[in-house]
Amino acid sequence: MSVNRGEAAGAAAPAVILVNPQLGENIGMVARAMFNCGMTDLRLVRPRDPWPNRHAQAAATGAASVVESARLFDSTQDAVADLQYLLATTARPRHNTQLVLTPRAAAAELRARAGAGVGCGLLFGKESRGLSNDDIARADAILTVPLNPAFTSLNLAQSVLLVGYEWFLGNDATPGTELHMPANTRPANKAELNAFFEHLEGELDACGFLYVTEKRPTMVRNLRQLFQRAGLTEQEVRTLRGVVSGLSRLGRSRGTGGD
Amino acid sequence: MSVNRGEAAGAAAPAVILVNPQLGENIGMVARAMFNCGMTDLRLVRPRDPWPNRHAQAAATGAASVVESARLFDSTQDAVADLQYLLATTARPRHNTQLVLTPRAAAAELRARAGAGVGCGLLFGKESRGLSNDDIARADAILTVPLNPAFTSLNLAQSVLLVGYEWFLGNDATPGTELHMPANTRPANKAELNAFFEHLEGELDACGFLYVTEKRPTMVRNLRQLFQRAGLTEQEVRTLRGVVSGLSRLGRSRGTGGD
Repeated sequence: MSVNRGEAAGAAAPAVILVNPQLGENIGMVARAMFNCGMTDLRLVRPRDPWPNRHAQAAATGAASVVESARLFDSTQDAVADLQYLLATTARPRHNTQLVLTPRAAAAELRARAGAGVGCGLLFGKESRGLSNDDIARADAILTVPLNPAFTSLNLAQSVLLVGYEWFLGNDATPGTELHMPANTRPANKAELNAFFEHLEGELDACGFLYVTEKRPTMVRNLRQLFQRAGLTEQEVRTLRGVVSGLSRLGRSRGTGGD
Repeated sequence: MSVNRGEAAGAAAPAVILVNPQLGENIGMVARAMFNCGMTDLRLVRPRDPWPNRHAQAAATGAASVVESARLFDSTQDAVADLQYLLATTARPRHNTQLVLTPRAAAAELRARAGAGVGCGLLFGKESRGLSNDDIARADAILTVPLNPAFTSLNLAQSVLLVGYEWFLGNDATPGTELHMPANTRPANKAELNAFFEHLEGELDACGFLYVTEKRPTMVRNLRQLFQRAGLTEQEVRTLRGVVSGLSRLGRSRGTGGD
């Protein structure tokens, strides 16, 4: 059987298998969550309502292709037949002995296996009851999302989204912190900052703001640090120099300036 | 102003501020996503429909307290007045210069600040249009969720869920991989495994399965490794010994066994 695999995020994306999904809208929302995370192989085991389902298509706006290529199966066994590593998503620990993974640990396992060419899948139960014990027993491990113990209830698409998000991040190169700047500017360099500081301090000397000699070094350092923390761009330094010039002109015109 | 803070996950949870939310159902779903992640301080800036909103209450099943304690504000400025660190969630990079954080990096920043007693908030725009540039300019940094570049669209509650999930995980002690076992069993020890292996190999010698002398060591190692990988419990080892005994009895009764 050929498996339709997402290519948006490197290694082959896991299949998502929904067992007995009830509402078409939820299937459509799952398709969106999958596509958000670069997953496209959706498999449905005995959905409650006839398939194709117009509610699923309506809810899948932007991810219609995932719904259109979804495949129907009569049993979980058939739906996972070609897969080699299967995780069962369930909030409830069961009475069998099984490994329980967080989505983050599961993502690492899935990435490692997909990288070795192993066909992977994520099994989700019906909205109201989750997975049967027999379906859980088909899985290599259980996947449970850590959440507020007082309220762990997620809907089907949210479960898919959290698991998919961790899988997506496993191959995502976005830096944790990134400085976004318009194309026509750059961070100010230290010479530009220093020239601004000297400009500012010169005008503050002139207006008498720094007149207490023993406090001047601390005041100057505090002001410099405050502006350093802002991570100014070259354009912003020019703007600030204009602000200082404008204010000191105003002071002079009112006769409150120092010279 | 006293701030209602989630206590489910250690340090003070950030406030969630929704600017001009349109559908009551979405507000209710946001409340659920917040409570999933131990967040309870919901603030609404000029929601489109009158408040209280029965659609919000209906959608918030299980998180009704978050909706009931939500506070209304006339402006974003008022809603964030008591906060000291504010992140604006937006998918679109803007033309201003600002730090852009992933939810994971944002969670670390929020934890660090909340731990120092800093009041933190997460700003979310209206469903259809996101945040205004003016509201984004109130924030200390931008928060963007890395997703499939071909499809980044999330609904409001999903955005809150992904950001809240990362915040929750920042103080969550769930091990990535955990062995779940019924209370009345434990992993088999090496002596029990060795006794099982010797039992199995003895019966396989007896039935002739291991008759090729030069292949015997490899075959024995392969069988031992296969059972080692399964991480058997003490109960499962006893079950397997029963299986071996049962099969070898059957072999002897059919006269196909070795002795």
